Amino acid sequence: MSLLVVGTVAFDAIQTPFGKTDKIVGGAATYICLSTSIFTKNINLVSVVGDDFPKEDIKTLNAKGVNTKGLQIKKGEKTFFWSGKYHNNMNSRDTIETQLNVLEDFDPIVPNEFKKSEYLMLGNLMPSVQKRVLDQMDKKPKLIVLDTMNFWMDHFMDDLKDALKNVDVLTINDEEARQLSEEYSLLQASKKILDMGPKYLIIKKGEHGAFLFSKDQVFFSPALPLESVLDPTGAGDSFAGGFVGYLAKTKNVSFENMKRAVLYATVMASFTVEKFGTENLKMITKEEIDCRLKHLKDMSQIS
Amino acid sequence: MSLLVVGTVAFDAIQTPFGKTDKIVGGAATYICLSTSIFTKNINLVSVVGDDFPKEDIKTLNAKGVNTKGLQIKKGEKTFFWSGKYHNNMNSRDTIETQLNVLEDFDPIVPNEFKKSEYLMLGNLMPSVQKRVLDQMDKKPKLIVLDTMNFWMDHFMDDLKDALKNVDVLTINDEEARQLSEEYSLLQASKKILDMGPKYLIIKKGEHGAFLFSKDQVFFSPALPLESVLDPTGAGDSFAGGFVGYLAKTKNVSFENMKRAVLYATVMASFTVEKFGTENLKMITKEEIDCRLKHLKDMSQIS
Repeated sequence: MSLLVVGTVAFDAIQTPFGKTDKIVGGAATYICLSTSIFTKNINLVSVVGDDFPKEDIKTLNAKGVNTKGLQIKKGEKTFFWSGKYHNNMNSRDTIETQLNVLEDFDPIVPNEFKKSEYLMLGNLMPSVQKRVLDQMDKKPKLIVLDTMNFWMDHFMDDLKDALKNVDVLTINDEEARQLSEEYSLLQASKKILDMGPKYLIIKKGEHGAFLFSKDQVFFSPALPLESVLDPTGAGDSFAGGFVGYLAKTKNVSFENMKRAVLYATVMASFTVEKFGTENLKMITKEEIDCRLKHLKDMSQIS
Repeated sequence: MSLLVVGTVAFDAIQTPFGKTDKIVGGAATYICLSTSIFTKNINLVSVVGDDFPKEDIKTLNAKGVNTKGLQIKKGEKTFFWSGKYHNNMNSRDTIETQLNVLEDFDPIVPNEFKKSEYLMLGNLMPSVQKRVLDQMDKKPKLIVLDTMNFWMDHFMDDLKDALKNVDVLTINDEEARQLSEEYSLLQASKKILDMGPKYLIIKKGEHGAFLFSKDQVFFSPALPLESVLDPTGAGDSFAGGFVGYLAKTKNVSFENMKRAVLYATVMASFTVEKFGTENLKMITKEEIDCRLKHLKDMSQIS
């Protein structure tokens, strides 16, 4: 079993009603890798940073089982930087600043030894870049999961729809599902989106839980009610990482197993939002995760 | 087993993005009674209308197993009337007009034969009126459920807190839980509210499902994803009716049984919102309800 993760490795500066951070390490692929590393240690990363990116953070990823041979380090260039501010309800945010830097002309190169990866997680990135990774694979992976966001729908909808044709699982939030499908009802939206290519659709609703749809089945997991949420950044990426990590570990991509994967995904996201950045994700243990999973099952299952 | 239902029997005029109604029969107690009548035929109603209220609508309630001996009919007076308009997302609404009419000086009188009712559902009403019903009971019912809304929190918070001291289950929505507790986190809110008297708290989140809290347990049911929602009016009342109706039918007020009751409550609310007013609630069969319950279980339970 091997898992290829593609996405940004970045610097973030985050403000929430509960505090703010200086430049800290973030990026979709960082969250995804840290989250998957709970489940598997055979993770291949394809991404890009500038030479301002701290070596010790790469070593942290390596120590978690992440092979960074596909992480391009661009000499004399700067790492992608995003700065944002969350509103009071934490459900929406404003981007304060985006510096694309190395992302501007990122050409993802999949090392030969990564081309046979059985699981592929395409983290949030320009759809044409996601597609270029897909095209480099030696054979179709056992499962391809793609995460995206409204920005790409606004500006690159055709590229996104092109990428979606080759994807097994799409993960988006409720607003994005409505935008992509032009349907308000999430049930109607799921039908339209599943006609675009993906066999499965995950619609994340933040504190309101997550749906997993196939053509003829639906599953829902509530989010865990938390005492406090400090920083929602990376919640969706941690969710996706937990989802694909659990499936890769258990080598079972049935709908029934995807239900369990959604529960683990929910647990991973719940830890992420309780601290700023990747702080919690780097520290949590398998025991803490299993304990919270039990709590999630207790609150959603009847005997 | 007998169930006493207290609440408004009223006229509504409703506008939603999908249509509008003339004056139709509504009111919390109407929705509650119709919803409970699926589960039990021993329902006692205490409410008030004017002599403009159609006799055939009282007969409809009677035919569903509702004893209307406690329904006061005020000669020469008019029935409570509410008119409202829902916004595009159906999650919020504006009141266009409220005519209190017979509600203005409603003195609820519980007929002697109703005073031994084992289950008591106090539908949304002025808290002091709910309290006056409680005070007339011969002995403490096996279960007292109270529904309320933000309006009473804005204007009669002390009366509401007084009523809450004697209640087993409180049902409110998420915004009301935040207002009542002055806590944003629903987990924190539930702790504060359970300290006010209720042993159990249901927090309804509309399309996002519902929580059931006790001091040391929590359960969550998703809402059913629907193709279309025509009119949210009465969803909360139908939910409460399904909840208390199922408990009364099964004569079991354990937390485990309340979980099942929340699933039935969710199903009842889902039918209500698919049509205007009480239209669906008057027509649905036990078979349709069981079919939808199975769907709800399939989408929330793992094997």
